[in-house]
Amino acid sequence: MIVTLLHHTDKPEELVLQAMAKCYDRKPTLKSLQAAIKAGHTSLLEHVSFTWELQGISRVVLAQLTRHRIASYTVRSQRYCDEWDTDYYVPPELGPESRDSYLRGIRRSRDCYRKLLGEGVPKELARYVLPQAVHTELVLTMNARELYDVFFPLRLSKRAQPEIRELARHMLVDCCWVAPGIFGEPEDWEGYDE
Amino acid sequence: MIVTLLHHTDKPEELVLQAMAKCYDRKPTLKSLQAAIKAGHTSLLEHVSFTWELQGISRVVLAQLTRHRIASYTVRSQRYCDEWDTDYYVPPELGPESRDSYLRGIRRSRDCYRKLLGEGVPKELARYVLPQAVHTELVLTMNARELYDVFFPLRLSKRAQPEIRELARHMLVDCCWVAPGIFGEPEDWEGYDE
Amino acid sequence: MIVTLLHHTDKPEELVLQAMAKCYDRKPTLKSLQAAIKAGHTSLLEHVSFTWELQGISRVVLAQLTRHRIASYTVRSQRYCDEWDTDYYVPPELGPESRDSYLRGIRRSRDCYRKLLGEGVPKELARYVLPQAVHTELVLTMNARELYDVFFPLRLSKRAQPEIRELARHMLVDCCWVAPGIFGEPEDWEGYDE
Amino acid sequence: MIVTLLHHTDKPEELVLQAMAKCYDRKPTLKSLQAAIKAGHTSLLEHVSFTWELQGISRVVLAQLTRHRIASYTVRSQRYCDEWDTDYYVPPELGPESRDSYLRGIRRSRDCYRKLLGEGVPKELARYVLPQAVHTELVLTMNARELYDVFFPLRLSKRAQPEIRELARHMLVDCCWVAPGIFGEPEDWEGYDE
Repeated sequence: MIVTLLHHTDKPEELVLQAMAKCYDRKPTLKSLQAAIKAGHTSLLEHVSFTWELQGISRVVLAQLTRHRIASYTVRSQRYCDEWDTDYYVPPELGPESRDSYLRGIRRSRDCYRKLLGEGVPKELARYVLPQAVHTELVLTMNARELYDVFFPLRLSKRAQPEIRELARHMLVDCCWVAPGIFGEPEDWEGYDE
Repeated sequence: MIVTLLHHTDKPEELVLQAMAKCYDRKPTLKSLQAAIKAGHTSLLEHVSFTWELQGISRVVLAQLTRHRIASYTVRSQRYCDEWDTDYYVPPELGPESRDSYLRGIRRSRDCYRKLLGEGVPKELARYVLPQAVHTELVLTMNARELYDVFFPLRLSKRAQPEIRELARHMLVDCCWVAPGIFGEPEDWEGYDE
Repeated sequence: MIVTLLHHTDKPEELVLQAMAKCYDRKPTLKSLQAAIKAGHTSLLEHVSFTWELQGISRVVLAQLTRHRIASYTVRSQRYCDEWDTDYYVPPELGPESRDSYLRGIRRSRDCYRKLLGEGVPKELARYVLPQAVHTELVLTMNARELYDVFFPLRLSKRAQPEIRELARHMLVDCCWVAPGIFGEPEDWEGYDE
Repeated sequence: MIVTLLHHTDKPEELVLQAMAKCYDRKPTLKSLQAAIKAGHTSLLEHVSFTWELQGISRVVLAQLTRHRIASYTVRSQRYCDEWDTDYYVPPELGPESRDSYLRGIRRSRDCYRKLLGEGVPKELARYVLPQAVHTELVLTMNARELYDVFFPLRLSKRAQPEIRELARHMLVDCCWVAPGIFGEPEDWEGYDE
């Protein structure tokens, strides 16, 4: 999994403070901003957004990701792109025996996909046999409110699946690096289990 | 594919006419409503919604479906549900030889899934080997504006894939039956190719 | 203020239970639905929606209302509708002296509006002098999740203004009447202060 | 009216091209991006956003603005801010006589507001007498798709009111300056009348 931050709002805390000043006609401090966020006034965070390039995530995670409707997605199209050489997710939790079964299953699906392409079946039909573990790539834009209020609480949680938790941790590290005044440090989110 | 209309707004045209009357302080006729819709004033249609139960659609279509963000989805969870006996989509366009390759691929994936479950792998991990053709079920609510402005134009189009076109046609028939004053007749949408 | 429920999803609890059954492939009870809602799984509630006609609310409340972006609005247009005889909100909290000042102010604004119309100024320009207390009417559709998670907590709160609290209470009574299995009783929301 | 661009996505065309490349696994040119936009594939534009500070716009325009639900707003609060000295919109279309009537009406409303404050009425109640022409300030974030597909076509149109048309023109000039590869030149939108 490769998570690359392509773009983010410049000096996010400053912009959010400017917005907050507008609301109350009074210059707030970073401290009062943080108090406002803790008190749930997170609409201010919508002015800040992050754009990532995500590579090497499975279509399983894509399905979980796109359920977040307040975000923008541009996804590698299986209708137009060739998945001949595309890689696959392998859950690290599998024991050695299951791992073998798993890999054999994946290999056979891939071979079947290639065979269908070889027989002239269009990519958009052949892809039906691809396993859900197949990797995809996308560009994702999400605003800081959705990240703070919904995505991180839900996807860093112990109840989330390992693959999307890994993705969420990568994204969190970027957010904390860019906007520590809003997101704090990654450790602040540890043990999070909503 | 089984598409069951679970619920829809009662007498949709009447409700939309009531809303339109509010805007202009004047009782409109169905004709003037239709003119307003044609002229793009489709926000009125948001007051009307449809809820379907969709069964026997593939996860490929689910992925296309959930890209429509102005809609509500409750989807069969592959983390919690057993897909041991779940069925698969088979594209009718496949020639006999490719159909054989396809079915063999699907069967092997299913066997792999069952084997993993047998080895004690949790459902949420085993499902990674399931092919994207695997069937799912969901309850979907969409308002008439999204259907009219976005879903039908995009998904009835010749450029859409056959499986989602079939789904869209089923949904269109329901909409035309329930609200002919808004959606007209299915034939009105024929040859649609945005 | 007149709040009229024009339409609501039929048997909302049944529909939500059907959706929930889909997710887990198991028939839930009303009790387990209520536990799910309490635990924050409120996306199920999006399948249920309510449509009201609101009359006699001020443009101040309209401004607060339309900040809820997950909802549909059809509002009386001040560009096209004549506000010659339209009524105004008078805050019940005003003391007798302030009430007199307030009413005089309102009356003068109304007279100014009428004078401008008399001079041939178009309604869409004359309305700039109308006070924010001026009444409006609208048709509003909101789904049960937005109502449950956002609108009621925010607008029933003691920190909300009296006029929108009154509106929220009217809407709550309707929701509790139609869907007690979801919204409980109005008393359950008493003392609410988020 | 003062329209200040506080922030925008850096090199918007580059980011959108990166997103487009992801979709088709092929590096597109600016020309093919522009063809894609013309063909309606504007979801790519969601990755780009603009944040403005708007000062000296009326609450009438605010009401029109906030009907755009795919945007983020932080607005000067009339509950907490003192509007004692706040300015008012005066439509330039008014003839001299009507202009006098208008200004007198505005002045009286302002005096009434001040009187109520003097009598100890809280700001949040006194503001009900303020005319809709009263100025407000806000921070607005909107993505390039909403701007391109909805806001500019609707608000630059001859059918829009002069005040919001002026606002839209200011915003358009910023967009064309920052992202000419997407928005073209302001002249391209002239005579626009959807």
